[in-house]
Amino acid sequence: MKESPEEKRRRLLELAKASVTTAYSTGEHSVILAINTYNEIEHAKNLIYEKLEEWYGIFFPELRLTSQLTYARFVVEFGMDKKLADKERLSSMLGAGAEAAAEKASKSIGREPSEAEYLMLKQVAESELYLDELQLKLDSYLAVEVKKLMPNISYLVDYKIAAELLAKAGSLSKLGFMPASTIQLLGAEKALFKHIKFHTRPPKYGVLFKLPQITNASHFKRGRIARLYATKICIAAKADAFTKNFIAEKLKKDLASGLERIAKEPERTDAQRQAGREQYPRGHDSRSRPPRWQHGGRDFNRAGRHRK
Amino acid sequence: MKESPEEKRRRLLELAKASVTTAYSTGEHSVILAINTYNEIEHAKNLIYEKLEEWYGIFFPELRLTSQLTYARFVVEFGMDKKLADKERLSSMLGAGAEAAAEKASKSIGREPSEAEYLMLKQVAESELYLDELQLKLDSYLAVEVKKLMPNISYLVDYKIAAELLAKAGSLSKLGFMPASTIQLLGAEKALFKHIKFHTRPPKYGVLFKLPQITNASHFKRGRIARLYATKICIAAKADAFTKNFIAEKLKKDLASGLERIAKEPERTDAQRQAGREQYPRGHDSRSRPPRWQHGGRDFNRAGRHRK
Repeated sequence: MKESPEEKRRRLLELAKASVTTAYSTGEHSVILAINTYNEIEHAKNLIYEKLEEWYGIFFPELRLTSQLTYARFVVEFGMDKKLADKERLSSMLGAGAEAAAEKASKSIGREPSEAEYLMLKQVAESELYLDELQLKLDSYLAVEVKKLMPNISYLVDYKIAAELLAKAGSLSKLGFMPASTIQLLGAEKALFKHIKFHTRPPKYGVLFKLPQITNASHFKRGRIARLYATKICIAAKADAFTKNFIAEKLKKDLASGLERIAKEPERTDAQRQAGREQYPRGHDSRSRPPRWQHGGRDFNRAGRHRK
Repeated sequence: MKESPEEKRRRLLELAKASVTTAYSTGEHSVILAINTYNEIEHAKNLIYEKLEEWYGIFFPELRLTSQLTYARFVVEFGMDKKLADKERLSSMLGAGAEAAAEKASKSIGREPSEAEYLMLKQVAESELYLDELQLKLDSYLAVEVKKLMPNISYLVDYKIAAELLAKAGSLSKLGFMPASTIQLLGAEKALFKHIKFHTRPPKYGVLFKLPQITNASHFKRGRIARLYATKICIAAKADAFTKNFIAEKLKKDLASGLERIAKEPERTDAQRQAGREQYPRGHDSRSRPPRWQHGGRDFNRAGRHRK
């Protein structure tokens, strides 16, 4: 019996719906959204912290603390107690900075907050701590899920970096298909296109910059280390996305020996540094100069527009 | 005995510090920061809501609710219960929309969330509710403080609008010195300068747009109502900032009779509408055309730059 058009339409619609359900049935979308939510909460925390510091700054403008979190904790604990009478609690919170804070408090030019003001400030500071706790929970969720989803990549790099790579790529299979050079620059799209368009220095890394191995290396070797990591992550991504084998042990060994090799290489000479500066000069000029293939050798004025 | 330069320096420094303390001794800075914090938390809520909707959308993409708050409450209550078995609770939360939601849930193409996913989603949704509660607290703090600080202005308009006017002006005495026309346009600075620079339509109101009397009026009369309010707020601001008398009873009566007068005026005729359009034409052209005094009658090309 032949299917009527109406029946066919319904059948195909069902098929399409089922395929959407299948596409979203893996855990990777939850991981992507968890890391995105994590970053968004970081943003929200910063917004609220800015206002908190401005507000509490009316009462204690001299206060300088090492982190936003300590600041919020300080406001909750000592917001009303400007004399900082409880020295023990203070030094247990601030450690070595306790004395300096007490000194500043005794000479502060700010006035005392009223009861109602302190109550509001405390609640704003508490919301900061609340959001921080939520971040910790998302963090531990990610730790579990990323290790399940990407055992190889998360064996090589921190699970949060792995999650960000996944989020930038869009899906695990897309990440699996990416060449190492693309993985190296995931998250550096803006710098890459600025390089292509305005001939600025090319980016060396995107998300991978968060690796301590890169941040602790000298500027000259960072690009090489990022490249090394990208090649190994590239292989690991293929295993995670397709074969599902655990091959990260070997990759980690390769990584270690590669890092050793790079560490032994000589540092950049002054001549090399000079050559790099000539190729991609810093500042306004390089930003306004399109690449050679775009301007075709014609003359440009400083503002980067054609002379007519 | 003459003062040494060192002594004089110290004395003047003390004076300067004392004057800073005095300047910050009024409650107005707290009110300004409370309203700014309120707005910032609104922003943070929106950021988190966006991610929440995206994330829960994996599991229930068909869900459409009237507000962000209801959405967050729904996720907390029914996130795990996709069948929406508890009809009573559902209808007490969504009212008339309960049946539509149940209908959609039964046909949803999303999958069920896992236990861990639901736990994270629930906590993100709860943070939304938490921030909302914090806003309510700031709101009631503002209600008390604004009425104390600006009894006249907050008698005429909502205390949150009064607080925003104060925040835009910077301080109560600055607000007291402002002419009505400036108060009318507080918060519309961008539109005002766009008008001055590009000859777009002039703004009719800034913060005052939030008045229900303006939002409910016809487009033609909104400017007049804003102007009326601005004149009365201008007088009230002087009383709040300087004389500290309560004169708002009379102002409110004047306001009411002015509103009545405006309500009786005829609506805009088609000829008037046409004239307005010719003076400030809409769209790209008007945006790119500087006012007459700036281009001095010279010829302009469409992109708004001088022809050379």
